[in-house]
Amino acid sequence: MNPGKSIDPRSFAIDDRLTGVSRIVGVSGSKGGVGRSVVSSTLALALADQGKRVGLFDLDFTSPSDHVVLGVRRGFPDEEFGIDPHVVHGIHMVSVAFFTGDTAVPLRGDAATSTLLELLAITRWGDLDVLVLDMPPGLGDTNLDVIQLLPRLELLLVGNGSRVVIDSVRRALDLFTELHVPTIGLLENMHRGNERAVELLAVAAGVPFLGSIPYDQDLEDALGDVDRLRSSAVYSALENVLPA
Amino acid sequence: MNPGKSIDPRSFAIDDRLTGVSRIVGVSGSKGGVGRSVVSSTLALALADQGKRVGLFDLDFTSPSDHVVLGVRRGFPDEEFGIDPHVVHGIHMVSVAFFTGDTAVPLRGDAATSTLLELLAITRWGDLDVLVLDMPPGLGDTNLDVIQLLPRLELLLVGNGSRVVIDSVRRALDLFTELHVPTIGLLENMHRGNERAVELLAVAAGVPFLGSIPYDQDLEDALGDVDRLRSSAVYSALENVLPA
Repeated sequence: MNPGKSIDPRSFAIDDRLTGVSRIVGVSGSKGGVGRSVVSSTLALALADQGKRVGLFDLDFTSPSDHVVLGVRRGFPDEEFGIDPHVVHGIHMVSVAFFTGDTAVPLRGDAATSTLLELLAITRWGDLDVLVLDMPPGLGDTNLDVIQLLPRLELLLVGNGSRVVIDSVRRALDLFTELHVPTIGLLENMHRGNERAVELLAVAAGVPFLGSIPYDQDLEDALGDVDRLRSSAVYSALENVLPA
Repeated sequence: MNPGKSIDPRSFAIDDRLTGVSRIVGVSGSKGGVGRSVVSSTLALALADQGKRVGLFDLDFTSPSDHVVLGVRRGFPDEEFGIDPHVVHGIHMVSVAFFTGDTAVPLRGDAATSTLLELLAITRWGDLDVLVLDMPPGLGDTNLDVIQLLPRLELLLVGNGSRVVIDSVRRALDLFTELHVPTIGLLENMHRGNERAVELLAVAAGVPFLGSIPYDQDLEDALGDVDRLRSSAVYSALENVLPA
């Protein structure tokens, strides 16, 4: 499970690059489709709107979406002694989509590890209050690498009330507890009616329940349009989700 | 990108194990949350109900769900000169969940490749009309391995009208075309209103559009209950989705 901390010289550069970053928040949730990209992007937007210095790093390398949610089309970042994140809507943003454009990015696990190491080693995040990491679904290389490489990582877990999601998040929570990864809490997305499965799961797992974001059928139309995102229920729910 | 066909002896056993399987259908879609597990499981159920001999192999190793959709709780399969799939609701089924129970399965890419090779090399599928593969999200090791190991693979792609999904499926379709993977077509799940983005994507990519499964807010309650699944819109939509 070791991504090569002892042998890959880039792992030593990473701590330096993150010296000015106060908090590293990984938005995770083992099942796909729970809205991780929307939550990550909107959280970054809400924090930036509050005047915080915020970074957003899309780690879903084979299927990045944060640039779609935030309506960002950019090319290669500027490069001088490293790369500078694009600053979009006040957010310091890095995504493989800036490098690959519209091309698919098939990546085996070791290549994903290398991509992560490379981007962490060369990105000049500068001083940030919060760096938000949009983590990929599943429990594969990138999730394991981030946990091992970034000891200051705090996880913000996202789930919804679907049986398949609950089953998957329960397993993931057990694993994160076993690995002693600090967890901010579990947030319910796409809440409907009187569902309480996510809240009950948080209680059973002994992690804080961070509340429910109501299901919003107009959200799809807000994707790519930050002004509409700002008036969405997701945005309101995320404004105060991070404890000080 | 080579999973080790030339060096891993298990890859030679795989062709033998699949001799009696007439068709191998991979249910894919690069983004999570499009309903791949529901489509895979319900497709297998509908085909089994028609009297076909059907296998279902859940390849989402780190977050398996087919057993949840079909309401199956089983332990280790029987083993003699290989393992026998559990036969559930007429479906010959293999999932890592049968081996791991409620435990999370973190897997790096090379371990996922090894798991795939091992399970393909030891499973006695016997004679099947169709083997349905529920493929994981993203374009990582397992998706690439299946494409390389199983030249008879036909892809059934699932998407929905969300911008993030359309963007991701477009990239994946380009890649599959470039890799010359035979594609049965693109199926729209969770269709709402007058959305036509998935249909237009299929036309633009030159793959058959397989129709739309309407969004069904009662579907969640049918998960785990095959009798209710049988009366769902998903089931009806999948009964004739495979061309002869």
